[in-house]
Amino acid sequence: MNSPARRAAAVADPAEGLPGEFALIARHFRRLAGPGALDLSDDAALLDPPPGRQLVLAADAMVAGVHFLPEDPPETIGRKLLRVNLSDLAAMGAAPLGYLMTTALPRSLPADWLGRFVDGLAADQAEFGLSVLGGDTVSTPGPISLSLTILGTVAPGAALRRDGARPGDALWVSGSIGDGALGLRVLRGSLPADADGHLAGRYRLPRPRLALGGALAGLATAAMDVSDGLVQDLGHLCRGGGCAAEIHAAEVPLSPPAQALVAADPALLPLVLTGGDDYELLFAAPAGAEAAVLAAGAAAGVPVRRIGGFVAGTPQVRVLGPDGAPLALASGGWSHF
Amino acid sequence: MNSPARRAAAVADPAEGLPGEFALIARHFRRLAGPGALDLSDDAALLDPPPGRQLVLAADAMVAGVHFLPEDPPETIGRKLLRVNLSDLAAMGAAPLGYLMTTALPRSLPADWLGRFVDGLAADQAEFGLSVLGGDTVSTPGPISLSLTILGTVAPGAALRRDGARPGDALWVSGSIGDGALGLRVLRGSLPADADGHLAGRYRLPRPRLALGGALAGLATAAMDVSDGLVQDLGHLCRGGGCAAEIHAAEVPLSPPAQALVAADPALLPLVLTGGDDYELLFAAPAGAEAAVLAAGAAAGVPVRRIGGFVAGTPQVRVLGPDGAPLALASGGWSHF
Repeated sequence: MNSPARRAAAVADPAEGLPGEFALIARHFRRLAGPGALDLSDDAALLDPPPGRQLVLAADAMVAGVHFLPEDPPETIGRKLLRVNLSDLAAMGAAPLGYLMTTALPRSLPADWLGRFVDGLAADQAEFGLSVLGGDTVSTPGPISLSLTILGTVAPGAALRRDGARPGDALWVSGSIGDGALGLRVLRGSLPADADGHLAGRYRLPRPRLALGGALAGLATAAMDVSDGLVQDLGHLCRGGGCAAEIHAAEVPLSPPAQALVAADPALLPLVLTGGDDYELLFAAPAGAEAAVLAAGAAAGVPVRRIGGFVAGTPQVRVLGPDGAPLALASGGWSHF
Repeated sequence: MNSPARRAAAVADPAEGLPGEFALIARHFRRLAGPGALDLSDDAALLDPPPGRQLVLAADAMVAGVHFLPEDPPETIGRKLLRVNLSDLAAMGAAPLGYLMTTALPRSLPADWLGRFVDGLAADQAEFGLSVLGGDTVSTPGPISLSLTILGTVAPGAALRRDGARPGDALWVSGSIGDGALGLRVLRGSLPADADGHLAGRYRLPRPRLALGGALAGLATAAMDVSDGLVQDLGHLCRGGGCAAEIHAAEVPLSPPAQALVAADPALLPLVLTGGDDYELLFAAPAGAEAAVLAAGAAAGVPVRRIGGFVAGTPQVRVLGPDGAPLALASGGWSHF
């Protein structure tokens, strides 16, 4: 029998002698802790907000089998969750500050799972310049269930919002669309893999467009990140701006492997336009700002493409096919319910 | 077939015409949204941090069947999660500012579940003076899985920490210990219910000691909230302070129904001391500060009781029974792994 006195004894291994939950935190999560996290050993974190900045806050959840594949490498799962949240900061034109994460984990995980999960997060913390402030680790009889709250900052009043698009504005998107949705089909075996693994990589590791979001402050009239599908998400910009939008499908930027798949099977085009998991920036800018937008993209190192525009009318999205006729799409995008 | 244009149409009902996830947010969560939440319709929330204050941040997760009973009233489930987080703020001496919440919900929930869940949160928002800043709602094939990140503020340098207890300090606890653990057994049918439902109520609805936490700033040398059991949690204060602690079991405050159960079956005492779900404040204060601590409790309207003290030595917890001899406890407290 372990007496409470023995359990509470201080020992050299930070994890030995601690109950399981605290051992996990000491062994794995503590190395992610940044300033203010108090070594993840207090009730809460303390943070001096950067003076003269507004805070930007977002939260996303991911469940195994819904948002990622249970067999995905543990290194990419935490990174995907972090990057999805970083993408929300990018969509506001904000810079990362820190994050809190909760993990609900089955007891049956492989022994090396958590270490590899944290390895991935550590790599992304270094890449994106932020660290853990706090969190919680619990057990679940269900699938892995993760939640992350991100904090960022932005100059007061400079945040990119969803409600500023106006008729006459041009519609732009960054990077390439459809890779994530195609990558999921590749991972499920229903589409052939590309040689470089680009599509699967884009499903597993979104690329938050933080530099572009920052460069669009004062330039874009509205912005958001594409997570649930280009068409559905554009609907949010339409509702926010009180106007309609048109997308020219032929202008939507596709990566080379996505181009190859759609060329071989044009029926994949609706999936590209509605599939989700893109994490690109979708934004409005005045029609005369084309040169400035292209310069912002170049400065951020991210291609940007004009794919359509906003027009007066009831909020709605019209997708024009390569022949100029409206495309009928069965579904606007991904919905969880 | 629903065209994307039709899906994106603006309509009178904020939920009609939206995909399921957004309809849920519009119908239910938006009424919880406070200033800065941007109606829960943007990528992130914007918050001007209160000038001259430090931010305090904590996150907790709860899973059905682990942290609450699947048959618990939906009204109490969200409130429990919010209060558990408020208790972390109380333990730091912080005041609430706002929160972000993610919900992973099975598709099979009863039709009225989410409305009742949000009703409970709305009541607690009014009681504790905070509102939702953001969140995410996803589906899960597993049990209900919730995560909440809370933000609070504290005067710079005034936060109560876990690492300040020193030999000679007195050990105090607020309210009553053991009600939550006994209440869980009552709800499971393994202990008889008290007439007023006090024990079950304490399991379902913790009482975050925010006023007391605030009153202890500058007075307590260390503090935390009791969530995983009195004995195990006291181990954290010992490790933080680099000293040992003694609890006099006879001094541990019990509610009248807990007293009655332990009197009838003294074997329940270890459960009271290690069972968890208390959400009371456990804190250290200089031995000479007794009058000030009692006054702080009186000002906050919460009973406080001196239950032992800190002594020099290797960090460990010793529980002295009513006869003054050390009690042997099979388990230090609740652990998730």
